[in-house]
Amino acid sequence: MDNIKIAIWGFGAMGAGMAKMLLQKRGVDIVGVCDVHPDRIGKSVAEVLKVDKYNDIIINGDIETVLSNKKVDLCLLATDSFTKGAFPKLKLIMDKKINVITTAEEMAYPQAQEPELAKELDEIAKVNGVTVLGTGINPGMIMDLLVVCLTGCMETVEYIEAKRVNSLSPFGITVMEEQGVGITLEEFNKRQAQGELAGHVGFKESVNMISDALGWKIEKFEQQMKPISTTVNRKSPYGFAKAGTLAGINMTGQCYIDGEVKIDMIHPQQIEPEMEGTHTGDYITIKGNPQVNMAITPEVEGGIGTIAMCVNMIPHVINAKSGLKTMIDLPVPRAILGDMRDLID
Amino acid sequence: MDNIKIAIWGFGAMGAGMAKMLLQKRGVDIVGVCDVHPDRIGKSVAEVLKVDKYNDIIINGDIETVLSNKKVDLCLLATDSFTKGAFPKLKLIMDKKINVITTAEEMAYPQAQEPELAKELDEIAKVNGVTVLGTGINPGMIMDLLVVCLTGCMETVEYIEAKRVNSLSPFGITVMEEQGVGITLEEFNKRQAQGELAGHVGFKESVNMISDALGWKIEKFEQQMKPISTTVNRKSPYGFAKAGTLAGINMTGQCYIDGEVKIDMIHPQQIEPEMEGTHTGDYITIKGNPQVNMAITPEVEGGIGTIAMCVNMIPHVINAKSGLKTMIDLPVPRAILGDMRDLID
Repeated sequence: MDNIKIAIWGFGAMGAGMAKMLLQKRGVDIVGVCDVHPDRIGKSVAEVLKVDKYNDIIINGDIETVLSNKKVDLCLLATDSFTKGAFPKLKLIMDKKINVITTAEEMAYPQAQEPELAKELDEIAKVNGVTVLGTGINPGMIMDLLVVCLTGCMETVEYIEAKRVNSLSPFGITVMEEQGVGITLEEFNKRQAQGELAGHVGFKESVNMISDALGWKIEKFEQQMKPISTTVNRKSPYGFAKAGTLAGINMTGQCYIDGEVKIDMIHPQQIEPEMEGTHTGDYITIKGNPQVNMAITPEVEGGIGTIAMCVNMIPHVINAKSGLKTMIDLPVPRAILGDMRDLID
Repeated sequence: MDNIKIAIWGFGAMGAGMAKMLLQKRGVDIVGVCDVHPDRIGKSVAEVLKVDKYNDIIINGDIETVLSNKKVDLCLLATDSFTKGAFPKLKLIMDKKINVITTAEEMAYPQAQEPELAKELDEIAKVNGVTVLGTGINPGMIMDLLVVCLTGCMETVEYIEAKRVNSLSPFGITVMEEQGVGITLEEFNKRQAQGELAGHVGFKESVNMISDALGWKIEKFEQQMKPISTTVNRKSPYGFAKAGTLAGINMTGQCYIDGEVKIDMIHPQQIEPEMEGTHTGDYITIKGNPQVNMAITPEVEGGIGTIAMCVNMIPHVINAKSGLKTMIDLPVPRAILGDMRDLID
């Protein structure tokens, strides 16, 4: 069997990270990369990643060329956060009979906010005989799939709290902007009032994934966004927060079912949290029978986590029936330590 | 759509527990129960469970009658720990075109110790167009599926430690005997020397499930069994350990891959651990990138956990392609809070 052939669209922190991870894996090759950033376009993957392999893969700004040059089994799309933005790209990829995994947060459960587009994506995938999946560390794993999985050993579930205290340091420019890293409180208030601050994208996706998996009907979902100010200068590879500005955002959300809050989401995100004494961790508390109190300390690192989730799901997506899939439709994710081809049915 | 029709074979602590859980669920009915225990045979399910429903379901010692009276979609088999013992029962069920979920620990991954029987079960299932799954809290979830799931957000995995410190108190007579609860140290030594003490059944299943999921080749697996003596009288619903006898067994296991121990299994099990200051918990430590340190405290309760895993997997098993399946082949387990029929494809 030939090596699995992967194209990558978007070669920022996530896309380049996936390429680095794929370099360590057997039975899989990168056959093309699309990115329009002036620092990267025209350079080889080897040059950008500072590695020996893939001198011959030149980063191309034209996706048509990238996907038409060679046979591609699956495209990793790491360009967008929202389904609307990712949609035309997903369509383009799938119309070429290529499977796709995207980091777009809303695509972890597009049924939540874009049910029409979700339906359309499912149809496009089925017409072309391919599969589309959105995943990442969160949404995709920590505050949804892992919650769902833990309820699997429960008879009854009364209440769920999912809390992720994490660091934004590993993430790229897009995330820094979405999370308001480095902006003033004044700017935060202004952008929030104008609805221009994304904050964490994923609560609605996560609570809908959980509710649909368990059979709960959501009556109402509310979320809040509060600034996390820093008193010291904080610097991460792609972000900088001067003392007095925002190191990140604390988001909270409440999901109402049967007239009461059944799911609480708590997610303070910031660059370099340790600089002011915040320790990271992932916490899931599920009341019911039996009660489950889970803690992962420190947090599962978000950057590597998202990269790993996307790469590790490649065989599951290739094996899946065609259509739009979410993490609750597919077998559990797993690290790939052997030859990736051995995992293809 | 008609309610899902369930038969239960084996009405001890596990089988009866599943019946109680099913009583709370919508869209599903118990249509027959087989058990040969003199305390239960001839009685109604209502009488045994002390509930109002199922006055008309009489516990029958003849499985042929139970499975032939009415249409059955799936049979829950809670009679055995070993694949060999469960095999003829699984075959009988599947030859009647009925799906089956079993609590038999070895059946959580029968490929590990009974590859020939596993192959045969897969064939029997396919010929009959049905699915067979073994599951439970452990093996089936805590020391294997959850480990696999957590590696899904990792690029590399170097070493895994899975530790379950649990209570045997919720389990039935069979487990008390397998775990040597209440026997003397002398008897422990004798039975261990003669290979007559099962201890925890599942290490080989769990490490093979993990290794196969990740793509590791096991070179060697070793396990040890040590007595847990009690200095006080301990009593659980189905067990009793007089001071000086065994409250349970501590099992440890090491899985060698590439010349070194890559998986450590640690599993002390006893009745009423709190009586001598042991606090229960489930701990998974995975070294690699990123490292994952998970703790669930207290342990996910074993009795309810096993019952819930079996019942919650019913829709996944009915939906699955025919054949022998394990937990790594199917979508993640989840609590069923709505109508069970809504989960059938």
